[in-house]
Amino acid sequence: MPRASSSARRAPPAPLASPWANAPLREQQREAKRQAVLQAAAQLFNERGFHATSLDDIAARLNVTKPTLYYYVKNKDEILLECVKKGLHMTLDGIEASRAAVGNAVDQLRACMRVYAEIVAQPFGMCLIRVGDEEVPEPSRTELRRMKSEIDLAFRRLVAQGVREGSLAPCDPKMTAFTIAGALSWIGRWYQPGGDCTPEQVAQQCINTLLGGVLRRED
Amino acid sequence: MPRASSSARRAPPAPLASPWANAPLREQQREAKRQAVLQAAAQLFNERGFHATSLDDIAARLNVTKPTLYYYVKNKDEILLECVKKGLHMTLDGIEASRAAVGNAVDQLRACMRVYAEIVAQPFGMCLIRVGDEEVPEPSRTELRRMKSEIDLAFRRLVAQGVREGSLAPCDPKMTAFTIAGALSWIGRWYQPGGDCTPEQVAQQCINTLLGGVLRRED
Repeated sequence: MPRASSSARRAPPAPLASPWANAPLREQQREAKRQAVLQAAAQLFNERGFHATSLDDIAARLNVTKPTLYYYVKNKDEILLECVKKGLHMTLDGIEASRAAVGNAVDQLRACMRVYAEIVAQPFGMCLIRVGDEEVPEPSRTELRRMKSEIDLAFRRLVAQGVREGSLAPCDPKMTAFTIAGALSWIGRWYQPGGDCTPEQVAQQCINTLLGGVLRRED
Repeated sequence: MPRASSSARRAPPAPLASPWANAPLREQQREAKRQAVLQAAAQLFNERGFHATSLDDIAARLNVTKPTLYYYVKNKDEILLECVKKGLHMTLDGIEASRAAVGNAVDQLRACMRVYAEIVAQPFGMCLIRVGDEEVPEPSRTELRRMKSEIDLAFRRLVAQGVREGSLAPCDPKMTAFTIAGALSWIGRWYQPGGDCTPEQVAQQCINTLLGGVLRRED
């Protein structure tokens, strides 16, 4: 009895600190984990190829089991689609920002080239280059191709604008845009992260070569 | 009896014309058919991707059945390996011939660029660009990578030589060679046979852009 009465006089106990996160934080953690799954998958696709990578490989790299992955993604096709889409969105956002930020066509072109070159040296962008569109089933394939052609068109418009401004040499903008985008895309095929050059250094040299040409100019 | 005697007086009958070809011709026909299998396969790999193409698809395009294909090739992996090897051999032979035929480094570089650009617009060369090395199992993968790096090295050596000669702008030959090979390789990704431009026209424009640069030169 005295113990019960002493207990009644105490302040109500603080609510138990739950070991589970609250709903908004849980959603945030889930999203961070989903991103980690996509990032690990993109790296593996780039290293081994899409078909040679299994969900078990992705799980192993993240120290989890395959069933854990299914909480974040549906299957390997969905993962690839998300990886490639991320690469495309990063590129399109970067191109838009570059075009909004700076003045004339050559400056904008230079900025877009830099954005694109740096993105294809990163896992999602590299995925965009290394894994063929054919691997993505319809209707996503058509959507991806549409986004890719937006990138091409952005380069093409800037080249045409530069020619009109007189800062770029007269040319067929479509062919020149393909030449530029091709040389930059190829970085995603040969670049080894952690090698001699940073992505910024690679981008800079490649852009200088494309703008100035390979031939020595007369002084 | 008179008939027998008349028969005895006739010249011996001409040997029956066999409906089967003789051995050397048979071998030649077999090789031509094997080449047709490889060519059809390369086109399908380029159109649909390696994994989405079945031996049945290849057989259907040639109006034969799958069992007929097995007389010429072992399996799909062998077909891919042969296609990519053909693309590589064509390129390496073309580069060697270009280097032997013409004088200074810039002329040789221009000729090598043309050879490479035209080959990647053809089925076997396109295969080289569109299908990733990862699809080819070891030890062939290592051999293919070795051959690919020979192409890179050939471009790199010519660039270095051109810089020494003073005809090319000072640069890092490795990076410049990657830029050149990248822009040209990309043709194999976007070029549609039968479109507006011939492979020669595409090659020419791409080479001009790479040599002269995108910026307008001061007159």
